[in-house]
Amino acid sequence: MAKLVMTPGPTNVSARVMAAMQKPVINHRSPTFRKLYKDVVEKTKTVFETEGDIVIFTSSGTGAVEASISNLIRPGDNAVVTSFGEFGNRVGEMVEVYGGTTVKASAPLGDCPRMESLEEAFEKTKEVKALYVIYNETSTGVAFRWLKQAGELASKYGAYFIVDAISNLGGDELPVDKLGVDICIAASQKCLAAPPALGIISLSARVKAEFEKNPPKNFYFNIPRYLKFAEKGETPFTPALPLFYALDEALNVALEEGMQNRIARHKRCAESFYSILGRLGANSFAKEDVRSNTVIPLLYPPGVDDLNFRKTLDEEHDVIIAGGFGEYKGKMFRIGCMGEINEKIVDQTVSAIGKVLGR
Amino acid sequence: MAKLVMTPGPTNVSARVMAAMQKPVINHRSPTFRKLYKDVVEKTKTVFETEGDIVIFTSSGTGAVEASISNLIRPGDNAVVTSFGEFGNRVGEMVEVYGGTTVKASAPLGDCPRMESLEEAFEKTKEVKALYVIYNETSTGVAFRWLKQAGELASKYGAYFIVDAISNLGGDELPVDKLGVDICIAASQKCLAAPPALGIISLSARVKAEFEKNPPKNFYFNIPRYLKFAEKGETPFTPALPLFYALDEALNVALEEGMQNRIARHKRCAESFYSILGRLGANSFAKEDVRSNTVIPLLYPPGVDDLNFRKTLDEEHDVIIAGGFGEYKGKMFRIGCMGEINEKIVDQTVSAIGKVLGR
Repeated sequence: MAKLVMTPGPTNVSARVMAAMQKPVINHRSPTFRKLYKDVVEKTKTVFETEGDIVIFTSSGTGAVEASISNLIRPGDNAVVTSFGEFGNRVGEMVEVYGGTTVKASAPLGDCPRMESLEEAFEKTKEVKALYVIYNETSTGVAFRWLKQAGELASKYGAYFIVDAISNLGGDELPVDKLGVDICIAASQKCLAAPPALGIISLSARVKAEFEKNPPKNFYFNIPRYLKFAEKGETPFTPALPLFYALDEALNVALEEGMQNRIARHKRCAESFYSILGRLGANSFAKEDVRSNTVIPLLYPPGVDDLNFRKTLDEEHDVIIAGGFGEYKGKMFRIGCMGEINEKIVDQTVSAIGKVLGR
Repeated sequence: MAKLVMTPGPTNVSARVMAAMQKPVINHRSPTFRKLYKDVVEKTKTVFETEGDIVIFTSSGTGAVEASISNLIRPGDNAVVTSFGEFGNRVGEMVEVYGGTTVKASAPLGDCPRMESLEEAFEKTKEVKALYVIYNETSTGVAFRWLKQAGELASKYGAYFIVDAISNLGGDELPVDKLGVDICIAASQKCLAAPPALGIISLSARVKAEFEKNPPKNFYFNIPRYLKFAEKGETPFTPALPLFYALDEALNVALEEGMQNRIARHKRCAESFYSILGRLGANSFAKEDVRSNTVIPLLYPPGVDDLNFRKTLDEEHDVIIAGGFGEYKGKMFRIGCMGEINEKIVDQTVSAIGKVLGR
C-alpha cells in the first residue's frame, strides 16, 4: 500500500498523474514530442503567470538553481542573497563558486530578513548584478513575504530579480510578471504534485537578452541552448519523457482546479496544521508572520525522540514526514503541505501524529 | 497504440519495466530508497563488470559526459579524444570549455581512428591527462574496436581512460575492470531498455582518488558529493524516483537474460539488419570492420526522400527510425538495434522499410 508522503517534497502523486507515465515511449525529435513540450510550456506559463520563456531541465531543483547562477554570474559580479536556512546558504555558496561575491541579507533560523536588511545589502554594495530571494526556505518552513518590495528594490538598482520558489510554486501566490521576477525557479515534485525530478524556470525578456549576449560555456545547463531548441519545441538533450507526460497531466489537474483555489486550499490546510498541532504542543518553528503555507516546521514537545517518532509514524501509521536540518536535527519535524493536500489528508496526518505524541 | 521505437535511443521499453514506474512515491531519504539505490548500484556493477563505484545522475547521457570532463579536466590539461562524429566532437569541445586542450585522433565519417592515430596523438603531446574514447558513435553508427589496446596505451602514458559507451553498453562487450576503464559512461534509455534519462558512470579507484584530491567546484554534477552520499545509499539531490524504479527492473531483465546472451542477441540482430537491408539497396554507412551492433547506419538508395520515407514509415507502418546527422542529413537513416531488439522486431522493421522503399 502506498504511504502518505508528507515530506516537503517529494509529495503524493495522484493516480491520474502516475498513470500518465505509462504513455508510450516516443522519439523526442518528433512532432508528437514537440506538441507535448509546447503544451507543457503553455500550461507552465499560466501557472507562473508569465509571458516569458520557460526552460525545463531533467534535474532536481538544485540543478535549476545552479543554472540560474552559472548562466548569469560572472567573476567579479555581486549578488545579494537572502540567507535564512540551508537553501539560501547554498545559493550564496554557488554564487562564489561561479566567481561572484555574495552579499548576504541574513536572519536567524525561524525568521527571514526584512526589507531593511535587503536595502542595507544593496546600499553597501557597489554594483549588484542580481538579487536572489528564497521565497520559501524548505529547511526552516519560513516564507519571505515581501516579494513586491524586493522586486522594486532590485529594479531600482538595475539588478536581476531571481526567486527560488521550488517548495511553494503552485501552492502560494507568485504572479511572476506582475512582480517583475526575471528568473523564477520551481520543481515538479513539490506543489505541482508530479513525480521528481524536473527543474522548471521562467525567464524575463531582459534576462534572456543578457544570457544570449553573454552565454555561459557549460553544456547541460546552458540556457541559450535550451532556448534555441525550445523554438522548435524540443530540448537540446534527451528529456525524461515519462516525467514530461506526468508534469503535463499534473498541470492539467492544477489548471482544472484553478490556481486561486489551489493556493487557497494550501493556505487553509497549512492553517489547520498549525492550529491543531499547536494544540498538541508542537509549535511552529517559524515566526507567525513568515510561516510557510507549504512546509510546516514544528518543534517537538519536550521528551520526544525524533527518529523513534518518525519511525513509528511511518511503520505503524503509514505517514512519512521529515526531520529537521543542521542544528535543528532532532529538535523539529517538517510536514509537506503540498500538491494533493486536503482536509482529509490533514486529518489523517494530525490524527496519526496525535496518537504517537500521546504515548 | 504504441509504435515500434527504432531510433538509436530512446528505445522500446517493455511493459514490465514501464509498470515499475507505478511503484509508490517514497522519501529519497529513507531506508526504502537506500535499499533501491544499493540494489541498482550492485546490478549496474554486474552489467559494467566492475568493482568500482557507480554514480547515477538524473540527466541525459550528455550530462554524464560533461561530468566526466568537469570533474577531471583542469586548465592546462591535455586530453586525447577520438573524433569521428558528432558526439566525439562534442567531447572535444567540452574539454576546451573546461580549460583543457583537445588533441584529436580523427577519422573520416563512417570510419574511426585506428591505434596508430591514437599513438601519434600521445607521442606528439607532452603530458596527456586523459584519453576519451567514443566506443559507439551514435551519429555515424561506428564502433571503435580496439578498447584493449587503447587502455594499454593510456596506461603506458599514465593517462586516465574514459569510455563513452552511452549507445552500446548492455548491447556490446565492455568488461570495464578488465579493460582498465577509469570512467565508463552509459545511459538508461539505450541498450538497457529503460526510459530516459538517467546518466550512469563507473569510476576506478584511481580516478576516484583523483576527484577526491582535487574536487571540482560545481554542484549538480559534483562527483565527490555523489560518492559521499552513495556511502549511505542516497543521492545528494532529489533523484527521479520513477526512473530509478524502472532502471532497477530493466537491470533485472538484463541480468535474467545474462549479459553474454544479451550481447550476442544484439550482434545477431545487427547482422540481420545489415544483410537484409543491404540486399534492399540500403548499404552500411560504416566501414564493415567498425560497424556498430547497436546503431545501424544506412545510406539511402538513390531517389529516396528522407523526410517522406520516415514519415510514411511512422504514419503508415508505426515504425520510428532516425535520420542522418550534420552533412549526412537526408542521405542516411539510422536504426536503433537496442535493448528489447529481437528477430521478430527486426522482421517487422525491415518488412516495413522494404514496403516503403519499394514504392
